[in-house]
Amino acid sequence: MLNNEITERLKIEYPIIQAPMAGGVTTSKLVAEVSNSGGLGMIGAGYLTPIQTREQIREIKQLTSNPFGINLFVPNEFNVTESEVKSASEVLNPIREQLNLSRKDGFEISTFNNAYETFNDQVKVVIEEKVPICSFTFGIPSKEVIAELKQHNIILIGTATTVREAIENEKSGMDMVVVQGSEAGGHRGTFIDGYQESQVGLMSLIPQVVDNVSIPVISAGGIMDARGLMASICLGAKGVQMGTAFLTCVESGAHKVHKEAILNANEDQTLLTRSFSGKWARGIKNKFILKMKKHEDLLPDYPVQNTLTQDIRKASSAQNNQDFMSLWSGQSPRLAKSQTVESLIKNMIAEAKKINSYI
Amino acid sequence: MLNNEITERLKIEYPIIQAPMAGGVTTSKLVAEVSNSGGLGMIGAGYLTPIQTREQIREIKQLTSNPFGINLFVPNEFNVTESEVKSASEVLNPIREQLNLSRKDGFEISTFNNAYETFNDQVKVVIEEKVPICSFTFGIPSKEVIAELKQHNIILIGTATTVREAIENEKSGMDMVVVQGSEAGGHRGTFIDGYQESQVGLMSLIPQVVDNVSIPVISAGGIMDARGLMASICLGAKGVQMGTAFLTCVESGAHKVHKEAILNANEDQTLLTRSFSGKWARGIKNKFILKMKKHEDLLPDYPVQNTLTQDIRKASSAQNNQDFMSLWSGQSPRLAKSQTVESLIKNMIAEAKKINSYI
Repeated sequence: MLNNEITERLKIEYPIIQAPMAGGVTTSKLVAEVSNSGGLGMIGAGYLTPIQTREQIREIKQLTSNPFGINLFVPNEFNVTESEVKSASEVLNPIREQLNLSRKDGFEISTFNNAYETFNDQVKVVIEEKVPICSFTFGIPSKEVIAELKQHNIILIGTATTVREAIENEKSGMDMVVVQGSEAGGHRGTFIDGYQESQVGLMSLIPQVVDNVSIPVISAGGIMDARGLMASICLGAKGVQMGTAFLTCVESGAHKVHKEAILNANEDQTLLTRSFSGKWARGIKNKFILKMKKHEDLLPDYPVQNTLTQDIRKASSAQNNQDFMSLWSGQSPRLAKSQTVESLIKNMIAEAKKINSYI
Repeated sequence: MLNNEITERLKIEYPIIQAPMAGGVTTSKLVAEVSNSGGLGMIGAGYLTPIQTREQIREIKQLTSNPFGINLFVPNEFNVTESEVKSASEVLNPIREQLNLSRKDGFEISTFNNAYETFNDQVKVVIEEKVPICSFTFGIPSKEVIAELKQHNIILIGTATTVREAIENEKSGMDMVVVQGSEAGGHRGTFIDGYQESQVGLMSLIPQVVDNVSIPVISAGGIMDARGLMASICLGAKGVQMGTAFLTCVESGAHKVHKEAILNANEDQTLLTRSFSGKWARGIKNKFILKMKKHEDLLPDYPVQNTLTQDIRKASSAQNNQDFMSLWSGQSPRLAKSQTVESLIKNMIAEAKKINSYI
């Protein structure tokens, strides 16, 4: 029932992939434990330096002999002037004061220009360290990068939020595609379609994608248990990628305030915001999101806004203050549990068998 | 596999409910054909007078001896001044000119005040005509109305877009609840939560509702075929309600331009708009929606805006001009087909059996 081209290709027992959540969530322990439990652990390397990337890969190799993967952020062009950075930073100053941080007048634009270099160096690390699986968010890498990774037999997984984006992933040579529904927490992987156009629920999105690509589809967004896994398979996906469900696990590196916020939230408390990073992302409504709402359309693009809010998010975390942290969550927080990775996966498989016998 | 408390209670063969689309879509032929094919046909009586309601019920009784149902719009309070109506009508005058309609300066507010009377008279008709199943959109009727319908053994089905709304439906005495995901076309059934809060995808929404109510849940939004039916059942729903899939059927009364627009659309072409009726609804992007976008937050509430745009929608339809018609559609237009109701339902059941043997 759960063995298919994805489990065969990725050499895993169950078609359950832990979403590569960046920003410290995917500790080596989390990634290794997912792989040790029969799923696929994934490093969220989006914010790591090449050196940190290599260190974490090596650490995980000590903790599991099963396959694991890594996710890289594909760098995007962005347009911003010094004065835009300055005024966006000024908007944040009252919040800085509240958190006892010093005011900031902006950044040199050059601060944001090393993304391509970092990405290329990360790709080198992935190849040198022989990570068997590499996924991408925010776009499709260049032909050269894809060719090089494929030459080293690394399995490539793209991310799409619409049929068109899935087709582009297939055309580029991706081996599989993660299809992210509007339910998903954290950053939208959208890279062609607009903000509104790409908000399609999985019930609609998966069958429409499956009808239009021949590579295996992995369903992502709001999936927390066997019900979502089995539903995804009925819709035509071959596996699932789960973020929020792993974020509240004991092994995840998410801040305890973040975990608690999810464990106490309802399905109607998340929303999409650009306020933290300049890219649309789904999180639990808090003071920061509500305060920034009126500036939303004027905020600079990723990665500028992300860098601008860094001190605020850091201070808010250090103060255990959820008001200014990015509390990423999908639309199913009522289904989140504080549990071990092993028990999450074991329960899912047991429940999946029950559903299978029942329907 | 598909027999459960819903099929037993509603006395139907398959847990497939045709969504009660108002505005001429649910012809007697469509409703009867769905019921004759083993599903549950539903009259969308939201815009019908009590006399028209009775006529259609009688007509359908001639066409099927199987159970069918009816949906009523629960009237909502609205606040609007003469001058707001006037300025909202003026915004529409350039469009009226384009369609060769005479300008309108507004309406007497009293025009909008007969909704409660109409609703109560419709309830009487439902009882007198012994329609076995009655569903509600836009809220929960009064205790008195619910008690009276129940006294006549009419099965009551509520509509919810969040867990809280589903719980309120259960508390009120509804026998079942349709849970409408963000994928759904046409009007949002939201009546407690706000616009953004109630946009939850079915993959997230169904399991969270199922965990919190004990009445059977019917899944609605973007479901077009056996994949959506089986996925809904995996998520914990007992059946599905499908709108767009029946709208493009041969028997539906939707305008041919509307059917064509759906058959040619992609998943990223629908959006939520208040422009046609004053209530949020999902339809295919057209000139009217885009033109009205900047006025969106200022438009008067339902039913005022709905009445104001009536002449425009009517003229646009008469001229086969899709620019100013409400092209309601869920997020799965790529899965829409021009087919008979019988073949839609037969194929669904055959495919559902295949999925069942496969997973």
